[in-house]
Amino acid sequence: MEMITNLGLLAAVLTTLSLLPQLIRVIRTKSTKDISTGMFSLFCCGVLLWFFYGVLTNHVPIILANSLAFIQALIILFYKIKYK
Amino acid sequence: MEMITNLGLLAAVLTTLSLLPQLIRVIRTKSTKDISTGMFSLFCCGVLLWFFYGVLTNHVPIILANSLAFIQALIILFYKIKYK
Repeated sequence: MEMITNLGLLAAVLTTLSLLPQLIRVIRTKSTKDISTGMFSLFCCGVLLWFFYGVLTNHVPIILANSLAFIQALIILFYKIKYK
Repeated sequence: MEMITNLGLLAAVLTTLSLLPQLIRVIRTKSTKDISTGMFSLFCCGVLLWFFYGVLTNHVPIILANSLAFIQALIILFYKIKYK
């Protein structure tokens, strides 16, 4: 079971970290033309629901991954709206 | 418990659907300048591990969401590499 939890944690780290290069790119370039507003709007709603799912099922990797993903996706969405 | 499963399914639908507007945009515009290669590379690895985590913990929403997310993210990554 510990192996499975570690796999979940690694998955959580990777998917959560994945938003960081996009966030850094958006902040640096201030260019968001090719980024989809629809993607990051739906993504924000989705990860927020995943967060609640994680809380209700008591899955720590899901809670951690989706709370951090939500914050990063929200900032990317903010930049998309600001610089579109 | 059914309510929690439905919440997970809705979260799965939203996060999975979220990649579709980005995928359509990339196919239509063939422009991927603002999209981060790092994001979609890490994201592909992450959702693949989430998929295995879902299989091992027997969570259908996690399995469904991440298998479809992987396919879409992989196509976006392909376009990013092709049109960069």
